[in-house]
Amino acid sequence: MNVTINGRKQHYRTVAFDAAKNSVLLIEQRLLPHEFKIVGTKDYRETAAAIKDMIVRGAGAIGATAAYGLAQGARAFRGSDLKKFRRHVETVYQTLKAARPTAVDPVNAMNEVRHAMAAGTTVEEQQQLALAAAEGFAHDDAQHCEAIGQHGAKLIRNGMKVLTHCNAGWLAFVDIGSATAPMYAAQAQGKKFHVYCDETRPRSQGATLTAWELAQQGVSHQIIADNAAGHLMQRGQIDLVIVGSDRTLGRTGEVANKIGTYTKAVLAKRHGIPFYVAIPLSTIDWDLKRGFDIPIEERHESEVCGAWGVTKNGRREYVRVANPTSGAFNAGFDVTPAELITGIITPAGIFKPGELWRQRRKLGKA
Amino acid sequence: MNVTINGRKQHYRTVAFDAAKNSVLLIEQRLLPHEFKIVGTKDYRETAAAIKDMIVRGAGAIGATAAYGLAQGARAFRGSDLKKFRRHVETVYQTLKAARPTAVDPVNAMNEVRHAMAAGTTVEEQQQLALAAAEGFAHDDAQHCEAIGQHGAKLIRNGMKVLTHCNAGWLAFVDIGSATAPMYAAQAQGKKFHVYCDETRPRSQGATLTAWELAQQGVSHQIIADNAAGHLMQRGQIDLVIVGSDRTLGRTGEVANKIGTYTKAVLAKRHGIPFYVAIPLSTIDWDLKRGFDIPIEERHESEVCGAWGVTKNGRREYVRVANPTSGAFNAGFDVTPAELITGIITPAGIFKPGELWRQRRKLGKA
Repeated sequence: MNVTINGRKQHYRTVAFDAAKNSVLLIEQRLLPHEFKIVGTKDYRETAAAIKDMIVRGAGAIGATAAYGLAQGARAFRGSDLKKFRRHVETVYQTLKAARPTAVDPVNAMNEVRHAMAAGTTVEEQQQLALAAAEGFAHDDAQHCEAIGQHGAKLIRNGMKVLTHCNAGWLAFVDIGSATAPMYAAQAQGKKFHVYCDETRPRSQGATLTAWELAQQGVSHQIIADNAAGHLMQRGQIDLVIVGSDRTLGRTGEVANKIGTYTKAVLAKRHGIPFYVAIPLSTIDWDLKRGFDIPIEERHESEVCGAWGVTKNGRREYVRVANPTSGAFNAGFDVTPAELITGIITPAGIFKPGELWRQRRKLGKA
Repeated sequence: MNVTINGRKQHYRTVAFDAAKNSVLLIEQRLLPHEFKIVGTKDYRETAAAIKDMIVRGAGAIGATAAYGLAQGARAFRGSDLKKFRRHVETVYQTLKAARPTAVDPVNAMNEVRHAMAAGTTVEEQQQLALAAAEGFAHDDAQHCEAIGQHGAKLIRNGMKVLTHCNAGWLAFVDIGSATAPMYAAQAQGKKFHVYCDETRPRSQGATLTAWELAQQGVSHQIIADNAAGHLMQRGQIDLVIVGSDRTLGRTGEVANKIGTYTKAVLAKRHGIPFYVAIPLSTIDWDLKRGFDIPIEERHESEVCGAWGVTKNGRREYVRVANPTSGAFNAGFDVTPAELITGIITPAGIFKPGELWRQRRKLGKA
């Protein structure tokens, strides 16, 4: 999407590749929203470190980064010995996989690249196929988000006020995003609307990343405390909710997403406000039978007890807000039941949560 | 309540008076939870400044501070000319009133003091009556909270998990608090329970003041992000909710309180969890006919866009968390309808919100 630096608007992808330098180009997301910087990794080890250290985050974005990282590693191999090359590629694969051991997207993305490479009969051919496959993966990721946007834009009408939670924006994908995709598409269609971004404590991805994205794209928006959505709904100030999802159960339509999503869904239901979840097909879990069994990550209490920000002198600092002798409970995610969800916006169209299983062929179930 | 400093436990009130020094003693709340300090004002002007600058906040606490401030000002008068004395007292009254022009508690408290003074026939008599009335006001405030505690403690059973929002604790009153009163009383009865404190963005009074209070009193507790209460309720981890109120409508039972209260009430209703509001009688508004007409203060967006805390070097700093080019919407309060409220805990007993009007004589309606 667009980023304006020193008055010049330019198009960036969250993840890209410089073939001449054999370098993966990433937006350094840890500096956002206070600084915009593109990092180029010099080898696959640096790419793995970038995933591990969360320079890049978000399902689609780390998938594409791993795909490019595998191609980068393969292309760095010198020589024509296919056996040695395969051993080298295996090392690259394992290194990138180990960067985020519980994430499924890097593995799926790299498997696509490896599968494509197998058609090559020489090292050079395989190297070319690897890059082409990685580029294809990144292209598809952006295309899927584009399709989500086209379907979802129909939900946004002129003058609407739209609530979103956390960041399911282009920074979490190669481009465009999932929950933000309908907003960007509606904007491109000339519709006027206003977005409320939940700040999304404890990590504040709404106040930092989503607000930054919307500001860069010129979408009218305001940040609100997570406590304020109920009040706004009560006063008729929210017409539509769109969020992303970390995992959607294909069998039940339940949605795991950032902590607080469930609360907004309960509020939306009470007020009769449509509540949509925008997802790429890769986040559908076709196996798990009930949302209660989705493991909920408990994160460090320091996230709840303080905040990262920039002081008036421009230093990036963590401040402890909470009472120093108190602890915190910090669940990262919650699960929203299907009955609270109006629809799931996918690249293949919008479905009721209860329809996913019936439409599983259309939705890419293997 | 108790505060432990350098290993020594001592009893403090939020507001007290040193008659020998003619000084109002206040806990400097702006330093909490990172530093505990008692401030003694040297004259009524300093007392007014302490109210204005929010060294002291909370309905009961600023009421008692103004009452003591009026006595302090009256006692500083030298001479026996009753006419001059009355003019002086009027100046003191107006100065203290102007410190928080929209607050009703300082005015009500000072009117009580003035009314008592009228029985004196000399300056000295009136000075003595002023102090006695201020002491009486502070005593009553603590007694009312004590009574809330005795009624509310019945709701807390062994092993319960209790949620509270914002700070309606002893720091908001002379002592004991409203929402916290049942907890302290239950603790004194030997009951074991656990409290979840909503951090209560944007001003984080739950993470700072309530957590500090509970830690000082040795009540088992954890801070949670405002986003987490729904998840905990869904998993059966919350048995009871107790909050305070800034204004309760005697005619409808609607409750205005810190932003986010409405959201917790909606969640509690969905999960069948009892939701109680603890209030002194002074917060009941017998005139207003509907909650929608309660003015909702819109506060500065900097509260939502960042946080105050302490850096690792011990400096107190504000950090900007949010995207620098985004704005925020910051409503300070919301209104919870009577249908979501199980009961109102008052010094006169626990009432259903719909009962307040019928019980108005018992509840002190003039």
